[in-house]
Amino acid sequence: MTAPTAIRRLDATALDFARHLDHLLSWESVSDEAVNGRVLDIIKAVREQGDAAVVEFTQRFDGVQASAMADLILPRARLEQALERITPAQREALETAATRVRSYHEKQKQGSWSYTEADGTVLGQQVTPLDRAGLYVPGGKASYPSSVLMNAIPAKVAGVPEVVMVVPTPRGEINELVLAAACIAGVDRVFTIGGAQAVAALAYGTESVPRVDKIVGPGNIYVATAKRHVFGQVGIDMIAGPSEILVVCDGGTDPDWIAMDLFSQAEHDEDAQAILVSPDQAFLDNVAQSIDKLLPTMERAEIIRTSLANRGALIKVADMAQAIDVANRIAPEHLELSVDAPSEWLPHIRHAGAIFMGRHTSEALGDYCAGPNHVLPTSGTARFSSPLGVYDFQKRSSVIFCSEQGASELGRTASVLARGESLSAHARSAEYRIKEA
Amino acid sequence: MTAPTAIRRLDATALDFARHLDHLLSWESVSDEAVNGRVLDIIKAVREQGDAAVVEFTQRFDGVQASAMADLILPRARLEQALERITPAQREALETAATRVRSYHEKQKQGSWSYTEADGTVLGQQVTPLDRAGLYVPGGKASYPSSVLMNAIPAKVAGVPEVVMVVPTPRGEINELVLAAACIAGVDRVFTIGGAQAVAALAYGTESVPRVDKIVGPGNIYVATAKRHVFGQVGIDMIAGPSEILVVCDGGTDPDWIAMDLFSQAEHDEDAQAILVSPDQAFLDNVAQSIDKLLPTMERAEIIRTSLANRGALIKVADMAQAIDVANRIAPEHLELSVDAPSEWLPHIRHAGAIFMGRHTSEALGDYCAGPNHVLPTSGTARFSSPLGVYDFQKRSSVIFCSEQGASELGRTASVLARGESLSAHARSAEYRIKEA
Repeated sequence: MTAPTAIRRLDATALDFARHLDHLLSWESVSDEAVNGRVLDIIKAVREQGDAAVVEFTQRFDGVQASAMADLILPRARLEQALERITPAQREALETAATRVRSYHEKQKQGSWSYTEADGTVLGQQVTPLDRAGLYVPGGKASYPSSVLMNAIPAKVAGVPEVVMVVPTPRGEINELVLAAACIAGVDRVFTIGGAQAVAALAYGTESVPRVDKIVGPGNIYVATAKRHVFGQVGIDMIAGPSEILVVCDGGTDPDWIAMDLFSQAEHDEDAQAILVSPDQAFLDNVAQSIDKLLPTMERAEIIRTSLANRGALIKVADMAQAIDVANRIAPEHLELSVDAPSEWLPHIRHAGAIFMGRHTSEALGDYCAGPNHVLPTSGTARFSSPLGVYDFQKRSSVIFCSEQGASELGRTASVLARGESLSAHARSAEYRIKEA
Repeated sequence: MTAPTAIRRLDATALDFARHLDHLLSWESVSDEAVNGRVLDIIKAVREQGDAAVVEFTQRFDGVQASAMADLILPRARLEQALERITPAQREALETAATRVRSYHEKQKQGSWSYTEADGTVLGQQVTPLDRAGLYVPGGKASYPSSVLMNAIPAKVAGVPEVVMVVPTPRGEINELVLAAACIAGVDRVFTIGGAQAVAALAYGTESVPRVDKIVGPGNIYVATAKRHVFGQVGIDMIAGPSEILVVCDGGTDPDWIAMDLFSQAEHDEDAQAILVSPDQAFLDNVAQSIDKLLPTMERAEIIRTSLANRGALIKVADMAQAIDVANRIAPEHLELSVDAPSEWLPHIRHAGAIFMGRHTSEALGDYCAGPNHVLPTSGTARFSSPLGVYDFQKRSSVIFCSEQGASELGRTASVLARGESLSAHARSAEYRIKEA
């Protein structure tokens, strides 16, 4: 008999619960001055020296032998080769996932719209894709083919003509599944570069790397810091924190299933967060037992154990209504509603990246192949942000086409407001278009 | 006869045009280390000391006598009073503008959607408003009532229950039109605070200022720097650069109108950018003459003169197709298509914040009352971003509800992909849901 796995127990009806929950959730991305300084130096070097700087940094940081950028470009044929090298089962799984992700994302595509007013004035928005998107894919152990699908497919569905992928190959190590996924997702160009130098190259362009309009995809602290710095020069997606899951269970799901769902989050890394909320005390105890039973059987047992001990929790609530309150307070990246009638609770969920409904919808299905994106807002940012989607690769232009009559009438209003702001050129520009009655 | 107004002349058919254009457009937001340090100190103080820090900074920076936050709160009754104090014409103009802005933005509201697959699996997105939005309104001369409408109305249309406005009142100076606009737009709470301390208070909350989910609205370098720092803790809108207009004219519009349209941008500040592109050399000369003639009659003549000299340009192009190329290269905040058949060119515009079509649609109409938002992407960021809209105050949660059958089938694919990524808890969590045939 081994000692029980350490995991925090909280009671939402306790007076000091809010304080405990705040502490549990507290997470601030590291803001490291040394990293910041190095990243700024790298960006500056890439802007000034282009390819030469990228090649040098790649040699130095990734231990890659490259004498020119030409050595750091993967042709499309190499991606196709990767597709041949993976197993048929893997290829089929990637293709199934890609088809489902594509079909879901096609529903997100937004179109231009306009309407015409009585006087003939036309108002609307023209929706267009980005010209070029950059996709950052981490190298080494955090190199996930599923992320390639999730980032590249929405861009392609949006109609982005050119998707440029960067992926470092530390000591030459390359992930065939990642390249195969890039092939299937329709990535147009691949550079085997990474770190802040790859972000800088995508943001500003070099002789070989084309400047993109937006950079998406996860990365380490150098990549995240570089993305924050180039924000404005290019668009960026979210700066992701550690991944988290909140499972709300009414007690009716197999405790082994729930334990494994918690593990599937915790296995990502030591900072990942897995929390279970239930009104059923006996069920919470049963899940704790399942954790003890199953943990020794896991390949990543040590990571899971650390993650659960540091950031995990089993939370007892008074009832389902309080469970939903806790969920809204947390605004989790992943929310499993492992309950009898999840649709009844759905309208009460105000903040969550993705909601997994019912006992059969494990988060893992959404991570890979259900269709929705697995790039989701972390660390409570679901309060104000959304899953990555086609809308992240489209942008809008307002369209205003005033009829003579419309311009004349609007001119009177604009004139009053412009003069109220002491902007007389605005006023006179509008007044020129007023027709004397 | 006065000397001609200095404004750059460029020819798009010249060999070195690209270089000249790059130089003309070059603009980097100031990244001031001293400002950065002060802003970080202010944010830290507000996080640690809350109201007390906000009150102290407001006394120090705004010269306002306040002994407690209670002195820096404007009740709703004060907004209603402002509505009585402005002129009836101003009130009517604000109300007309608000009605049109509201009606346009209602067309942007996005709804939840879902679809059901053959095996009963339901996929979709649930769209919800933010809980609380913060609106920054600058004090002093850059305090624009129209901005209050443009920022607050989309939030209210999105269904944001609480819109919190902050507006500094340097030396007690308060803008009645701004308060009246806040009243009309439905702003819920107003604090007379500004600067980095107001941004920090909105981002982290204090005893009196509620924590918001997103901060929108323009501000000076302290405000912009603070917004960049709190990004992630809260959502932010764009970091705006100087305002710009690109007028494309075929030569058929009254040159006085076009000169005044350029002035309406240039009068904002010395860094504002006004550019005219035309295939008609004689027309460019005529506009230059109109500039010379009209400039001395302008209230803000000196600002306009400096802006045109430093950042303005008259660009000769070979034909309209080249004009559109230049427009796409610039990705302007405001694009006037002052041409005969603007609808023919519209589909070729890939990047612009707002497109003003035809000779009668001056930018000023869009700035105030046409309906579309005047908060637009600047400095070429229209390549990847959009006008402020209702969509900025809504967010999405993915919804995945697998049927037993669906979970079983998806589980097989997820299992293969998860094992390919060495994430065996993911795999086992999916495999639990596979039904044996």
